[in-house]
Amino acid sequence: MLTEKLRQIFRETGTDAIFLETDYLRRYVTGFHSTDGYVLLDEESCRLIVDLRYYEAAEKALRGSEISVVEGSLSKAEELLEGYMVLGVPYPCLSFERAEALRKKGHILKDAMPALRKAMLYKTERELSLIQRACEIAEDAFNLLLPELKEGMTERDAAALLEYHMRSLGAEGTSFDTICAFGANGSVPHHATGSAKLKFGDPVLIDFGCKAEGYCSDITRTFLYGDDGKHADFKKAYAEVYQAHELVKEQVRAGMTGREADEVARASLRKAGLDRFFTHSLGHGIGLQIHEYPTLSPRSESVLEDGMVFSDEPGVYFAGEFGIRIEDSVQMRNGRVQSFMGKTERNLVIL
Amino acid sequence: MLTEKLRQIFRETGTDAIFLETDYLRRYVTGFHSTDGYVLLDEESCRLIVDLRYYEAAEKALRGSEISVVEGSLSKAEELLEGYMVLGVPYPCLSFERAEALRKKGHILKDAMPALRKAMLYKTERELSLIQRACEIAEDAFNLLLPELKEGMTERDAAALLEYHMRSLGAEGTSFDTICAFGANGSVPHHATGSAKLKFGDPVLIDFGCKAEGYCSDITRTFLYGDDGKHADFKKAYAEVYQAHELVKEQVRAGMTGREADEVARASLRKAGLDRFFTHSLGHGIGLQIHEYPTLSPRSESVLEDGMVFSDEPGVYFAGEFGIRIEDSVQMRNGRVQSFMGKTERNLVIL
Repeated sequence: MLTEKLRQIFRETGTDAIFLETDYLRRYVTGFHSTDGYVLLDEESCRLIVDLRYYEAAEKALRGSEISVVEGSLSKAEELLEGYMVLGVPYPCLSFERAEALRKKGHILKDAMPALRKAMLYKTERELSLIQRACEIAEDAFNLLLPELKEGMTERDAAALLEYHMRSLGAEGTSFDTICAFGANGSVPHHATGSAKLKFGDPVLIDFGCKAEGYCSDITRTFLYGDDGKHADFKKAYAEVYQAHELVKEQVRAGMTGREADEVARASLRKAGLDRFFTHSLGHGIGLQIHEYPTLSPRSESVLEDGMVFSDEPGVYFAGEFGIRIEDSVQMRNGRVQSFMGKTERNLVIL
Repeated sequence: MLTEKLRQIFRETGTDAIFLETDYLRRYVTGFHSTDGYVLLDEESCRLIVDLRYYEAAEKALRGSEISVVEGSLSKAEELLEGYMVLGVPYPCLSFERAEALRKKGHILKDAMPALRKAMLYKTERELSLIQRACEIAEDAFNLLLPELKEGMTERDAAALLEYHMRSLGAEGTSFDTICAFGANGSVPHHATGSAKLKFGDPVLIDFGCKAEGYCSDITRTFLYGDDGKHADFKKAYAEVYQAHELVKEQVRAGMTGREADEVARASLRKAGLDRFFTHSLGHGIGLQIHEYPTLSPRSESVLEDGMVFSDEPGVYFAGEFGIRIEDSVQMRNGRVQSFMGKTERNLVIL
């Protein structure tokens, strides 16, 4: 018996079966992680086809669930597909090579991505608790890192330490390349962590996250490594970004669009004359992938609803001087924004 | 002016232009790393299209090279594509969605993957030196880890420490999920690093690697965490795997097929009655991806030639007891196998 979630995805595609081979989609549907395998979902059943490397582990993990495990590789999957004419496949993930092969075998393809994307927008309690865990690990790791920062340490050293703590605390890995920026490097929103050395008085921006059973966390903290007395502009800007960040949590409601949510932060920065330094959008959805739906940007018409998870990350960037970004991973719950974060300081920290 | 390598790839496809958007292919062709972007390669020029997040960095990195950088995103790439009819695209990497969009705009698609794959088989000296660096970092990190192993430590702790050392030594990240297996867990070739605790007398199997400018290393070491006197079978099997591993380095020559190379190791284990415990193939190509061509397996007809990089990784697995694998990343050079590894012990280590 299929759960309502899978049945719903299947029905929405209007196909004879859905066929998946993308890692994160396979994991989304089955909850089981492997680097290879296939999913075949029809009205009645959901089958995971994995080879001998994964078969035993999958059998054990999925016993008693709605997913049945079949041992085999691509040829087995193709054999099972034979009974179906119209296949739902995710167009943005399916390779052109596979699409051509499926069509040669007589299958008619339909895009299953809209149905999958729609389902993935609304997180289950299990998914929310995994994101919560990934957030807690990230914050705990950050708190372990702070007292370990020393003058002369490189951005790469700091990132390595932070990642080590996340890993020891049980993370599966990072959810993206850790961004660690010292001094003026923080003014590049997408700075590549390098060999810059930490100096007294440096603003430090760290954007990082980790995974718990595949689910991501995403957090940014900006702080001062010592106060050399030259930080009046920085502190003023920090207070404004902080206010924009908090306003989003207070004012954004279920039913608002991503554009309206973005405008809450942007309007707040505009009042302070800082909106032109807010050079990216307010946030993005978070789940098995670090960038999902909904989108919170000046052009987004996505409607924010209960069960959605996204980032709240206003920032301002002054080329050659400094950058400030304050980011929490949050969820919409009972119509309001609720943060997954609460173990680290969002107010300005001066080490 | 294009270098011979790019000109050759272009010519081999017989197209008007090659269009790439897959991260590792973009990096292969341009040497520049970004998480978004497009490459357009024709007879005369190679253009990298990246948005504002990467434009400045790409401009700086590629100044004076054969690659010109264009600022923009997908719409810019589509605009530049307008002048070309027949496009070379990598069928296994291109999404079905993009393929359909390109065809709707009137482009005729041809598979560029064979030409790219063929070029990627033969590493340049620059590529070899990056793989060498990734191997040295991995070995140095392993040597730092050994004295830090303590009873009661979990597999995850050990993996976290090892990854930390690789990262601090300058690695970009891991080249795959670190496999750290204590005791009988080593008998699962693809064991998921977990919470098993290290005990005196445990065999330990660690399969790991890291990246230097995108290029991977891959290494496995198996050793004993203390000798509890019950390891006669383990030691006997270890000696046989060691011999198989070394024989590959001695006897495999340029011109042999992947099947013949695999047979060198398999025949050696067969003599000891252990070949049926060697449940996977001897090796795989290594480059920007951890699994590339050539393949060294009982069915591989790939011919091994100078400039190719692959793993030499025989192993034997006894369910519920232990597993042994000894793996180096190696290259074919002057007709012989030459290892990138030399800083860690391949003989049996008892801590």
